[in-house]
Amino acid sequence: MDFPVFFEDFEIGSSRVTHARTITEADIVFHAGHSGDFMPHHTDAEFCKTQPFKKIVAHGTMTFAIAIGLTVSSQPLNPHGMSYGYNKIRYPRPVFAGDTIKVNVKILSKEDHAKQPGHGILIEAKEVTNQHDEVVMYAEHVIIVEKRSAQKT
Amino acid sequence: MDFPVFFEDFEIGSSRVTHARTITEADIVFHAGHSGDFMPHHTDAEFCKTQPFKKIVAHGTMTFAIAIGLTVSSQPLNPHGMSYGYNKIRYPRPVFAGDTIKVNVKILSKEDHAKQPGHGILIEAKEVTNQHDEVVMYAEHVIIVEKRSAQKT
Amino acid sequence: MDFPVFFEDFEIGSSRVTHARTITEADIVFHAGHSGDFMPHHTDAEFCKTQPFKKIVAHGTMTFAIAIGLTVSSQPLNPHGMSYGYNKIRYPRPVFAGDTIKVNVKILSKEDHAKQPGHGILIEAKEVTNQHDEVVMYAEHVIIVEKRSAQKT
Amino acid sequence: MDFPVFFEDFEIGSSRVTHARTITEADIVFHAGHSGDFMPHHTDAEFCKTQPFKKIVAHGTMTFAIAIGLTVSSQPLNPHGMSYGYNKIRYPRPVFAGDTIKVNVKILSKEDHAKQPGHGILIEAKEVTNQHDEVVMYAEHVIIVEKRSAQKT
Amino acid sequence: MDFPVFFEDFEIGSSRVTHARTITEADIVFHAGHSGDFMPHHTDAEFCKTQPFKKIVAHGTMTFAIAIGLTVSSQPLNPHGMSYGYNKIRYPRPVFAGDTIKVNVKILSKEDHAKQPGHGILIEAKEVTNQHDEVVMYAEHVIIVEKRSAQKT
Amino acid sequence: MDFPVFFEDFEIGSSRVTHARTITEADIVFHAGHSGDFMPHHTDAEFCKTQPFKKIVAHGTMTFAIAIGLTVSSQPLNPHGMSYGYNKIRYPRPVFAGDTIKVNVKILSKEDHAKQPGHGILIEAKEVTNQHDEVVMYAEHVIIVEKRSAQKT
Repeated sequence: MDFPVFFEDFEIGSSRVTHARTITEADIVFHAGHSGDFMPHHTDAEFCKTQPFKKIVAHGTMTFAIAIGLTVSSQPLNPHGMSYGYNKIRYPRPVFAGDTIKVNVKILSKEDHAKQPGHGILIEAKEVTNQHDEVVMYAEHVIIVEKRSAQKT
Repeated sequence: MDFPVFFEDFEIGSSRVTHARTITEADIVFHAGHSGDFMPHHTDAEFCKTQPFKKIVAHGTMTFAIAIGLTVSSQPLNPHGMSYGYNKIRYPRPVFAGDTIKVNVKILSKEDHAKQPGHGILIEAKEVTNQHDEVVMYAEHVIIVEKRSAQKT
Repeated sequence: MDFPVFFEDFEIGSSRVTHARTITEADIVFHAGHSGDFMPHHTDAEFCKTQPFKKIVAHGTMTFAIAIGLTVSSQPLNPHGMSYGYNKIRYPRPVFAGDTIKVNVKILSKEDHAKQPGHGILIEAKEVTNQHDEVVMYAEHVIIVEKRSAQKT
Repeated sequence: MDFPVFFEDFEIGSSRVTHARTITEADIVFHAGHSGDFMPHHTDAEFCKTQPFKKIVAHGTMTFAIAIGLTVSSQPLNPHGMSYGYNKIRYPRPVFAGDTIKVNVKILSKEDHAKQPGHGILIEAKEVTNQHDEVVMYAEHVIIVEKRSAQKT
Repeated sequence: MDFPVFFEDFEIGSSRVTHARTITEADIVFHAGHSGDFMPHHTDAEFCKTQPFKKIVAHGTMTFAIAIGLTVSSQPLNPHGMSYGYNKIRYPRPVFAGDTIKVNVKILSKEDHAKQPGHGILIEAKEVTNQHDEVVMYAEHVIIVEKRSAQKT
Repeated sequence: MDFPVFFEDFEIGSSRVTHARTITEADIVFHAGHSGDFMPHHTDAEFCKTQPFKKIVAHGTMTFAIAIGLTVSSQPLNPHGMSYGYNKIRYPRPVFAGDTIKVNVKILSKEDHAKQPGHGILIEAKEVTNQHDEVVMYAEHVIIVEKRSAQKT
């Protein structure tokens, strides 16, 4: 069930959209306990009533984890790629319980890997939107991918 | 229990270390289900035996979530600060069940906020280390902080 | 706290009813993560609005697991019985968050075990109903039970 | 990301294999709490030492839920199919913490649906095996699938 | 499935023993997140190596919650009784992952309720022991129970 | 991040208030599964409609665990103190999903430890209140604290 894709096969500008998932109160409660982040913005509804959004907001780390989960469960594993890290994560709008999010994945750039011959560096934009098509998270994912041209023959 | 700190009070180069937390098999199982990321590197021990690390590795998104949890639970809430995002996340080494991680937080840089008068932009380096003092994650956290000089008098 | 019952003691047609349990949104979220089944019928409220039931439905595998949980927690363990499997599982109606289910257990049939002397095969009907007395699941449970007549004297 | 398949397209005897997943102690603990089934076979290690298998065994309902999770996460959703129930579930061998299971799905039979014109009944065998290629669960899944021939033109 | 018992029916000195349950690493991880108690004694294995017990100890609040769970799941609900509180909780020895605990419940004392005619106050000793028959928790539970003599005729 | 306090430093009557936390339906569902306490007061909404409070009430053991979690996460660890047990726990009012609780901690009494020279016994009152400032739990926590006067010089 793997889906092998080499560096040469990625096209700048090509994109895909993941499944969607509804974020629930239970997710926020789980995430507070899982991460140990019990900031009042995530766990104290009375405090939140005094804040601009008036209600509990999801953890940014949860939106990130669920977004990455959506991207990996929406397509088969590429055995030639390896996640290297992220160059940027931004949260332009909050996520609330009841929101349904999905991820738009787009190939932003490709360049040769300076230190690892036979590999390239791919940057994927991961834009997370809610049910109103508003962007709630934006990340640039750095992926190292093997080149076909470097495969043993 | 808040601990108000203004932009002027942060010193470049100052640092703190959080509590530590042992990552367990249960955390990895829980994170797979919570994030929906069931990649074989995190959930299939037989597959992992065929890979370089020989055993299941923790999700990068979990290390991130728990690291941020450690930083917020290790000091009081600063009502003058607001998380804006991250500029860089890297995972130089894997985290395994049984590893104990903690976070070293260091003020990297400060600059005025170009668009929000009365606020500054703080970059904190968050370096996550394991029990062997090896770096397993590195992040640069962007925080917007109010200036004391801009407070109403 | 065991409650030993031999094959001879079961009466065809006799029945019992379990405790009831309310299914919650948290149960469905938890089950998706536990089972890895993130089908949109269970995790995407926007998709569900376009479907006949208009809202998220519980996983059939969860109704099954909770129903069996209700039957085993509602009476003491019978050390002479062993679950062998199920002959039929049907889901005539959906279960939604907020529904309260209970299980009606009825002895359907008894026959000698062809290959294991001293044992019989019991079929129990397990009918799961919601708070409107509608059947939401029906299962036939196959149980192998020791005979009293085969006990050493 | 749907993958529409009509009744006519299924071939008796064709098969596929899912991803694999390692069952952990944490899964068994979670499942006991989620299902409410705290039978000593699943939660009391001292009791289990006195039993034939000498250690805690996974709940049959968990093996079932995770197996179905593996089958639905290993291929895209077919919008023309609907799960109707199961005709048989058997558990020939126990599953222990540390076992890695996967599911072999095979088309067993096809027949016209007597009461729903334009639909057929598909029976899929779902054979769950562990890392020793031993069968730990066997199920026959009944799925109702729309026929292409019945689609509006 | 209720089991009605009036105040008059309780006998001082009578006792019962519950089912047993093995405490796991997963339970401790889960409890830390559920309670928000991430004290290093429960979550930091490296810290624990420097402490007298050398390993992670279970939360006292978890032993308490699971012990009460064992007592209520081991006998039917008494509709005439109501939990009022506890007079004493002590933890003479630690509980570790892998320990199997059960609860010995004994009627310690009975007295008329000074302010609620028709009711009595029952004190039950709840002694939690591990697999070595060592006491790991001791609690005195205060229960208010209706009198038969006060029932309407 | 420890905050060492000796027995001599505690002042009778001094007090502090913890962060607050909103109790959710998800917490109650988790706690039922974690503790194994599925009493209908906590898990059966239809039963609860027939009871005085008309809705599901939180487990007393959960209020206790979360209250202790709030007290330990709201101040640094005191390496000179050790929890010994509780002298009294009372639940004057129920907690419902949606309630926000916090803990008021007050030093009630101090006395020398009869058997452990160099230590004292501290009793802290832990009063848990909801968002209406009503007391929902009251506990007296017994803590053994080292004396400064007994430290090696």
